[in-house]
Amino acid sequence: MRDVHVCEVGPRDGLQNAQHLMPTEAKKRWISALAAAGLEEIEVGSFVPPKLIPAMADTAEIVAHARSIPGLRVVALAPNLRGFQRALEAGAHKITFPVSASRLHSEANVRMTPEQMAGEVEKCILERGKLAPEARPEIEGAVSTAFGCTMQGEVPEDDVVRLAVRLAEAGCDAVALADTVGYANPAQVRRLFRRVRAAIGERLEGAHFHDTRGLGIANALAAYEEGVRAFDSSMGGLGGCPFAPGASGNVITEDLVFLFESMGVRTGIDLQKLFQARAVLVAGLPREPVYGHTPLAGLPKNFRPQA
Amino acid sequence: MRDVHVCEVGPRDGLQNAQHLMPTEAKKRWISALAAAGLEEIEVGSFVPPKLIPAMADTAEIVAHARSIPGLRVVALAPNLRGFQRALEAGAHKITFPVSASRLHSEANVRMTPEQMAGEVEKCILERGKLAPEARPEIEGAVSTAFGCTMQGEVPEDDVVRLAVRLAEAGCDAVALADTVGYANPAQVRRLFRRVRAAIGERLEGAHFHDTRGLGIANALAAYEEGVRAFDSSMGGLGGCPFAPGASGNVITEDLVFLFESMGVRTGIDLQKLFQARAVLVAGLPREPVYGHTPLAGLPKNFRPQA
Repeated sequence: MRDVHVCEVGPRDGLQNAQHLMPTEAKKRWISALAAAGLEEIEVGSFVPPKLIPAMADTAEIVAHARSIPGLRVVALAPNLRGFQRALEAGAHKITFPVSASRLHSEANVRMTPEQMAGEVEKCILERGKLAPEARPEIEGAVSTAFGCTMQGEVPEDDVVRLAVRLAEAGCDAVALADTVGYANPAQVRRLFRRVRAAIGERLEGAHFHDTRGLGIANALAAYEEGVRAFDSSMGGLGGCPFAPGASGNVITEDLVFLFESMGVRTGIDLQKLFQARAVLVAGLPREPVYGHTPLAGLPKNFRPQA
Repeated sequence: MRDVHVCEVGPRDGLQNAQHLMPTEAKKRWISALAAAGLEEIEVGSFVPPKLIPAMADTAEIVAHARSIPGLRVVALAPNLRGFQRALEAGAHKITFPVSASRLHSEANVRMTPEQMAGEVEKCILERGKLAPEARPEIEGAVSTAFGCTMQGEVPEDDVVRLAVRLAEAGCDAVALADTVGYANPAQVRRLFRRVRAAIGERLEGAHFHDTRGLGIANALAAYEEGVRAFDSSMGGLGGCPFAPGASGNVITEDLVFLFESMGVRTGIDLQKLFQARAVLVAGLPREPVYGHTPLAGLPKNFRPQA
């Protein structure tokens, strides 16, 4: 029984931005430990060109390992049709496409406008339609830089809403809003999730926050109070932020789970086992800085897990 | 024009728990820099026995310096009648008394029950009545361990409400709720502030959160949304947490101000000048760990200050 769904994105978003490479066998041990703690969905890697991002070169092998864990929903990121085909071959249950709402960021990053990138996602959805129904993965369109962009600065909310509608119409099963660079604030989170929900209804699912300026947990709280029930987070805030040495990257799984469980919101995750998974992460990537308050402070004396 | 009032408590709560001593002249420079950034209220020290807490031995001199800064409201902590008398002599504009809602914590800390400690505050209020009206400082009763206690574990909400009523009836001008050990969660914050406001109305003013388990900013958001407009915080999360190495102590001023300003809530504080005050702090206490995401990451490209 879960009231919210936490998707661990550390093996993808964390390791992709980490300073050190995690060996494949260590990744497998970490993913197994995460699943043992109750994580039911893990974004295990991305199908990007290995030359560009060596940390993701073993994603197919990692997907195969994760698929062997009973009950685990295996997510992989794909940036284009080629990555989608590789994710399909590997057997990912869910494939997520980042589609930047910032025109400048999108053009710099994938040499496509946001609309062209949405067209690429649509192509993949058409490809999926050719598969046998039981072989079709779920497809998520993640609107990145939805709350602002380090290149463009402001990202107009109208652009975000329009892109979310485009992705929903293209046939994405789920649409997420991502604060890729840690610009979001809780008032903006409430406003934008409301607007996008008004436009595409329950197709709007996930929230992906970064803690770059310390507001990650507060933004997650605001999104939760707006009805969001699916959250990305990264163990240890892994990957940091290249613009903010000493600051975590993604919102920290340990603290996010503590937020929910302490409020009486069931995550299905066992915090003590989560701390054990953190030890597995640290053992596998010993020189990488990890963050998170709850694992250091321990649980309150009066803490009662909800699971 | 301010929508919320941020009271910097670093010179008291931060330095009292810091690993290193800050020289008196460095404290003065830091307080001046904080005031220059727009902090209108600073808790500059506590009148506790210097033998017990050497870091606070120079509080009278610090109060005198702070009083010389035009427009600054100078707050000092007093644990008893003796401390109150010293705070009066020094000329603090506001004197705050910590009154623990946890029976175990109160008896261990001040060898008084919460009721006895409230009686001590009442004695001070009666003493104040003997002064000329223009010489009377504001008196705040801060209900500490209001959200839980490391010794007692759970602190019943009924105990907190009863103590807040007792302090209001004793004549405190303001009552605050403090999460002294970082146990609070946003649902509890909403519930308890509502209950105490229902009991004592607008006499309930301040919120004091610690970030021990990463929820400090989220708790501040919840309190703000419940109508709280006065917040304690500490620059750099100074003082850390003895139970959580690597975790900040008080909620971090820089990130709290960024939370509000980014939501369009006016603090009257200039973030760039606040970062300059942080440099003054670090220069004066170079070996002490400081925390905070916003100063490391910098302000978003599209950030517009509200002041």
